[in-house]
Amino acid sequence: YHGISSPAIHHSRSTSFSDRGMTLEGELNKTNQFYLKNEIAVIHKKPTPIQIVSVDYPKRSAARIKDAYFSKASTTDYNGVYRGKYIDFDAKETRLKTAFPLKNVHKHQVVHMQQCLKQGGICFLIIKFVSDQAIFLLKATDLIYFWNLQANGGRKSIPRETVEKLGFQIKYGINPLIPYLKAVDQLIDTK
Amino acid sequence: YHGISSPAIHHSRSTSFSDRGMTLEGELNKTNQFYLKNEIAVIHKKPTPIQIVSVDYPKRSAARIKDAYFSKASTTDYNGVYRGKYIDFDAKETRLKTAFPLKNVHKHQVVHMQQCLKQGGICFLIIKFVSDQAIFLLKATDLIYFWNLQANGGRKSIPRETVEKLGFQIKYGINPLIPYLKAVDQLIDTK
Repeated sequence: YHGISSPAIHHSRSTSFSDRGMTLEGELNKTNQFYLKNEIAVIHKKPTPIQIVSVDYPKRSAARIKDAYFSKASTTDYNGVYRGKYIDFDAKETRLKTAFPLKNVHKHQVVHMQQCLKQGGICFLIIKFVSDQAIFLLKATDLIYFWNLQANGGRKSIPRETVEKLGFQIKYGINPLIPYLKAVDQLIDTK
Repeated sequence: YHGISSPAIHHSRSTSFSDRGMTLEGELNKTNQFYLKNEIAVIHKKPTPIQIVSVDYPKRSAARIKDAYFSKASTTDYNGVYRGKYIDFDAKETRLKTAFPLKNVHKHQVVHMQQCLKQGGICFLIIKFVSDQAIFLLKATDLIYFWNLQANGGRKSIPRETVEKLGFQIKYGINPLIPYLKAVDQLIDTK
């Protein structure tokens, strides 16, 4: 034990308690696998974009990337299809207890969500307050409102009570671990 | 001139003749940029999935990936949103003149398309016959039919005349270069 959180170790355990030690990304991957296997939705995390500089092609073995760097994403991390609709979101964790800091959300993610909303996509943010493991779905329209205020000199975070008021809380389950499509149902139905 | 095709060089020219020397991937990226800028659709190519083994963090400069390998994709290459619908496709070129070889389509791509179809997604293949630059959109249902025949010992390719009969031809344009959403409109309207 080094005090370093390891999603791989937690993932191999099976109690819901240890699952709660996973990162939000790990929890969402597990949830998306459940939705996929049960034919409820097809939602994947996109691979991290990289720019490859050089590749080795050793004889009789697979190509190895020997030099590359991380390149800038132009979208959010997750997308897919549910109930015939295009689903698009990003997931963010914060250690703050009373607010969600908007510096966690990058401009390209806001721009991408605005573009998808125009085409009729369902866009949102999943926010996890790590301190008490509370998870909320916040509609992209609400996120964009506060993000734009911030970009124009307004407050740098969304108060937690605002997230609670505008968002949909997602309670931990067993299968799926984070039943966020229930919140998506609410989002779709309130449209 | 080394006789090696270079999308980068072709991209920097501006006549439609040189565009026709681009790879299908380059043509689709250009087309998707047009659709994005003109708020017609939001469709992106997914990054290539890689598994990172080691990363260097040099002082005062960006992280460099020093060892990684290509990992297996579990989806198709392109997805996004258009007319409120989830769009999902892959793009394939063939040098054959009279048939499209099914070995170009991997099992995980077929499985993924089946999963997306079940959720109401719009799924298809864009096929380019390089010999005469003819491009067709083939519905995923048609592709899956022939792919399954092949997997059960049937013929290893789809005859070009079948592609022409079942598919929608996409004629080169200027802006966008490959107006494939016209064919998607036809696909949606025949549903």
